[in-house]
Formats: sequence, C-alpha cells, structure tokens
Amino acid sequence: MKQSEYADRIAATDSSMLAELFIASSDPKNISFAGGYPDQTLFPAQALQDSFTKAIQAGAPGIYQYTDAKGPIDLRSILAQRHLARTNVQTSTDEILITQGGQQAIDLIARLFLNKHSGLGVEAPTYMGAISAFNTYEPTYFEIPLETDGLDVAYLEQQLKSHRGANRIRLMYVIPDFQNPTGVTLSVLKRQRLAQLAREYDFYILEDSPYRDLRYSGEDLPTIQSFDTDGRVLYVSSFSKILSPGLRVGYIQAAPELITELAGLKSSADVQSPNMTLEALATFLNENSIDDHINRMKPIYAAKRDAMINALHEYLPATVTFTKPDGGFFLWLQAPQNVNLLKFLKEILMPEANIVYVPGQPQFATSISMNTARLNFSNVPLEKIEPAVKRMAELLNKYL
Amino acid sequence: MKQSEYADRIAATDSSMLAELFIASSDPKNISFAGGYPDQTLFPAQALQDSFTKAIQAGAPGIYQYTDAKGPIDLRSILAQRHLARTNVQTSTDEILITQGGQQAIDLIARLFLNKHSGLGVEAPTYMGAISAFNTYEPTYFEIPLETDGLDVAYLEQQLKSHRGANRIRLMYVIPDFQNPTGVTLSVLKRQRLAQLAREYDFYILEDSPYRDLRYSGEDLPTIQSFDTDGRVLYVSSFSKILSPGLRVGYIQAAPELITELAGLKSSADVQSPNMTLEALATFLNENSIDDHINRMKPIYAAKRDAMINALHEYLPATVTFTKPDGGFFLWLQAPQNVNLLKFLKEILMPEANIVYVPGQPQFATSISMNTARLNFSNVPLEKIEPAVKRMAELLNKYL
Repeated sequence: MKQSEYADRIAATDSSMLAELFIASSDPKNISFAGGYPDQTLFPAQALQDSFTKAIQAGAPGIYQYTDAKGPIDLRSILAQRHLARTNVQTSTDEILITQGGQQAIDLIARLFLNKHSGLGVEAPTYMGAISAFNTYEPTYFEIPLETDGLDVAYLEQQLKSHRGANRIRLMYVIPDFQNPTGVTLSVLKRQRLAQLAREYDFYILEDSPYRDLRYSGEDLPTIQSFDTDGRVLYVSSFSKILSPGLRVGYIQAAPELITELAGLKSSADVQSPNMTLEALATFLNENSIDDHINRMKPIYAAKRDAMINALHEYLPATVTFTKPDGGFFLWLQAPQNVNLLKFLKEILMPEANIVYVPGQPQFATSISMNTARLNFSNVPLEKIEPAVKRMAELLNKYL
Repeated sequence: MKQSEYADRIAATDSSMLAELFIASSDPKNISFAGGYPDQTLFPAQALQDSFTKAIQAGAPGIYQYTDAKGPIDLRSILAQRHLARTNVQTSTDEILITQGGQQAIDLIARLFLNKHSGLGVEAPTYMGAISAFNTYEPTYFEIPLETDGLDVAYLEQQLKSHRGANRIRLMYVIPDFQNPTGVTLSVLKRQRLAQLAREYDFYILEDSPYRDLRYSGEDLPTIQSFDTDGRVLYVSSFSKILSPGLRVGYIQAAPELITELAGLKSSADVQSPNMTLEALATFLNENSIDDHINRMKPIYAAKRDAMINALHEYLPATVTFTKPDGGFFLWLQAPQNVNLLKFLKEILMPEANIVYVPGQPQFATSISMNTARLNFSNVPLEKIEPAVKRMAELLNKYL
C-alpha cells in the first residue's frame, strides 16, 4: 500500500499523535485532562431510555424507513423555538438542518463554501476537529490571533483589506462562547463588528457554539448572528455537551436557501441521520425540561472549573499563565517560549504521573506552538483535580 | 445570496429535478416506481424495538458518551463473522469500519483517494447517490458502458491502457450484484478480471453491494474482493435494504491500513455514528436470525419483480426493452433513441396517471440519456403493479 496513492488531503493531517493521545486518554489508569467529554455521571439515562422506547413505538413502522435529509419536522420545530428562546433570533423549520453533531455541520458548511485554496479564517488556536474537517477541502488558512476578549478583529480587518477578490476570506470560523481550546469569550462589540465586516468584505461566518448553554459566571452575550442583517451567519449548535454526545445530534440554523443547499450535501454525505435518535431526542425535549437539566449540571461543572483554577493558582510556576473561562469545558496553559509541553507530556507527565492533556500544536491550523496546552476539567472526578494538578505542577517545576 | 459564493462543486449538481421527483414519489396519491425504498410492511418492528430497549438499558451510561469512530467492537465482530459467511473472505474487526449507511462509505472512500481531476471509473448508468457523493471531490469521470453481464471490462482495459500515470483511473466504482439502476449482475469471469486489472494498472475498487443478499433467482456469485490478492478492493455493504434504512448502518471491509485512514476521515466527518442504533443492531443480530428474515422477504420481492416483468412483457410496445434482474429492487427501461422519457414523465405520466419513475439522465455521471428510466418494484403494493404498468404502457403507446 503506497501512501502516495491517497489524495493530497490525507498527507495534510497526521493523526497518529492524536490517536495515541486519545488511547491514553481513555485508559482508566490515566487521569485525563485531554478529551472534550462531558461528565457521564450527569447523563439523564432513565429519561433518555424512556424517550427511545416511546418514540420508536409511536413511530413504527415509518421510523425504520428513509425519511427526510433535513431531519424530522417535529424536532426542527422544537429547535426553532429553542433557537428563538436562547438567541433571540426568530426562525422557522426551513431554516434548520439537523446534522450528525456539530462536527458534520462544520464539514457540510466547508463543503458548501470552500474550493481548494479558498480563504478560510480561523482562530489561533481553534477546535482541532474543525481543522481536520477543513483540511478535507484544502483551504488557504488565515489564522487570527486570540486576545482575552476573543479574536483580534483589527488584525482580521487588516487581512480582509489586503486580500481581496478571489484570494479573500470566504468563510470565517468562530467559536464565540468559552472557545475550544482556550475558554475565551468574544466581546459584544467584537461580535457586532464581525457581522459588519462579513457584509463589508463579502464573507460568511460559521458561528460554532456548542458550549453556549454552559455558562458558570457572567451574563449571556448576544450571538454574532443576532447582529447579522444579511443572512451571512450560519449558526451551529449541538446536544453533545448539554445532553449526550453518543446521540450525535447537532443543527445548523441559517437562511433557507443555504439550508436547502446544505440538505443536498447532507444527502450526498450520508442520506440522513437515524430516525430513532432524532425522534427520541424530540420526545425527550417534549417531555423533559432540558434547561432544568442544564441548570443541574452547571454548579457541578463550575465546581470542577474552580478546583482546577485554584489548584493552578496555588501550584503552577508563576511563569506559566492560564485562562479563566466563564463556561465550557476547557482552559489554556501557556508556558515560557522555550518550554516544550509536548515533550514534557510524552517524556515525563504520562510515564511518571499517568496524566494527559492535549498539547497546543495540533490545535493551530498552521502556526507552531510548543509551549501551550489545553486542559479539560469536565470529565475528571472533582476530587482528583486538585491532586493531579498539584502533581503536574511539581513535575513541571522540576522540568523548567 | 449569490450562487457564485458557493464552491465550484455545488454548481456541478442540479438537484432540483430530483427533489421535485422525490416529493412526487412520497405523495400518497401517486404510485411510485421512483424511490429505492424497501417495503416497509416487512420491517421486523417488534424485534427492533426490543433490541433498542435492551441495548440502551445494558449500555447505559456509557452508551450516551463518545466512544469509537470505527463503531462498537461487538458489532464489528458480528460483521466480520457475517462477512466470512456471506463472501468467503476471512476478516477481523480491524478491517471493518461502521459507516452511516453505504452512502457515507462511498463519501469516505472518495475522500481517501480522489484529488480534484483524479480519474474515477463508474458504470454508465450508476447509482445517482454515488454520483452526488463523488461530485464533492470533483473527479474526472471515466464512464464504462454496461453489457448484459455487467460492465464492459474490455472497454475499461482500453481506457486503462490509454490513460497512465497521473491521469489514470485511481478508483473504480462497481455495483456487481443487481446493479442500481439496471438490475444487471457482473459475471464471474469479469469479477476475476477486474481484480487482476486493479493490480496490473494500480487502482482501487469500491465494490458496493447493498443488494447482494436479495437474490430471487440464480446462484450467488463470488465477490470481486474474493479474487483480490493485493488489498485493492474496498467492500461496502449496508443494512438499509435487508433490515431498515432508518437505522443508517453500513460498513466498509478493507485492509487494516485503509480502515485506519478511513476511521480518521469518519472522525473528521461526524466523529462517530450514534451508539444507540449500532448497539441495537448488534443486539438484533445476536438475538435474531437476519438470514431467516431475508428468506421471508425474498419471495415477496420476487413476486413483485415477476408481476412487473410480466406486465411489461404484456403491455409495453415491442420497441421498448427492459432488463430482467435476478435480485435487488430495480429494472431498466430503454425506449427508441428519439423517445424522451423525462418529457413523457413530466408532461403525461405524472399529470395524467399519477405514476412516477426516475428518468435515466441523472443516473449517468457525464453522458446524456433521454430514452431510459429506472423502475423500482420493491416499494409498490403487489396488486398495484400490474394495473399501473398497464396504464403507463397505454400512455407510452399513445406517446410514441
């Protein structure tokens, strides 16, 4: 088997290091700050089981047949109502496409807009699963640095000014709320400015917001989409973080003509998602309050975040800085320039302490970053956070 | 919203005619020979319901969590055993990737092999869902004509001889058993020769065989893969036709290094399929005999096929020919060159008789074919087949 027989896009992604990491991450002898997993003790298992039973019984035999690429109308109708309630943007069922989690939404939107070498704006760093989806379409990346209040909009504007026409940014990928991997939140003024820039410089925005509902401090901010007057924002969300990732349900809310195109692309990608999980989710949302469920989870995740931040404060060397997110699942470590956090992970932290995190490098579309790492706090038992951070900090101190 | 803002691949596919057709096809006032749907009165609804209940209960809470892009090991293990039993090819769990139906398998395999302008061999005509997946990657198509015993292997060999190196066919897409849309089956000698050609001319074969188990007459033929000594055949199958399309489960069986790459691509496309449907299928397969289920369905589909063939024989004008498939869901009409079966469908058959089929045109990757059509017999009630064919034939006689 010759590697050269694969398409060029395959060479672009070396997934072996990540594969190794995720094996280590799911090994029960390790403490994992690596994955992006929700805490599985919080899944409402009984209510979900009841929803599956009820939905499948009520839907048979049609539930076993082919149906509609967009997803069932009852679920889209619930999501339209929820979109209004959560983001203050009025919408309807023909503006919603159900996707196989947020991941498929990203893949389909990239497929709609990106030719090879099309300009794609991304935060630096950004969600590594999005990078791997985008690599499929071989775009030209424009990395936009992150500031404490989100992406550097002035830098983006410079890039927009100096790359016009065919070389322009056609799509900007943004995670505005408790960004993966940094935990940073985009300010209101920058959200508003981004929507203006999209109109001025003729590009689309993929607003990816799977963590929006998981805010532990501060106030909800308006979505980028709420400032959009021109149908240029495609809003993506998911039930993976707030309910269950095993369900694989996300959605895109966008202008109806975009949704029609994206539904065609969904057909060509996988025909449709399974009816059973979609109808079970519709039943769950009809018969349970997902907001009550989210409100029960928030203090638990907030306590984990606080435990991690407090321990980092107490034990980390002062030269290593970290973010303090208002929500979501992650925070971001930054060590002095000469410190290699990938090497530290592989040579010391994993073998000596059975602790794993995701090194910064694979979370950048193009630039090199050896002195950074992402820490996840959602999926570690609360009582293990402080001792594991302490142990990591001790080893890092020795390493510096 | 400007059409030109979309990627080039979007313009390649005009789905509006097909969308219109599928709306007509699911309108209960119409008799549909159009879709590729199984007969939904045959779904084993109670056994599937029980399988969902049991699998979800047994798997909680982990079943709600992220798991493995390849699919659960228990399901892959059952599929490996079934692959051996059905195709006589020994395999193991690391040679199997679970996909979201056969459709996703096609998309991922195209993603693995095809750069823009890479050579892709397809039968003419072929499965139109495959064409729409392939269009994503903007290949250069090589259409290979069909004969009564499957694709014209001599013509393929000429193409292989005259296009070498970078312009060669890198991937050949074949549906060997009861081909969609023609119902034609590839002969044993041609299967063997195809596997040899792949080695000689350095290409891969996507052997797509969703209908293989639905043979109503004649003997099973060995798979193309069974003649492959070089890991060049990627075998794709699905539970959509033999159990339930709403489940959305298919799989790829191929060399482990290909499966590893494809699992990475599955991750970037949708992370994984939903655990609940996959575990429910594993439970169903453990607790029921799917072969018994298939054997119960076969005489019912055979009767529908026979009813359609007999009525076509009796009523069609002699200048219109049709195939007589040994299995599957479809047969293929061919009228004289000057007869436009798309125009006949839209202007006469649909408005006057409420009958629909799929015209030939969208089922060719590149060539023009106005005098052909695909007829589906699986999803029409048996008693409606004869009168509907009769009515169609009367109108066609008048039209000629």
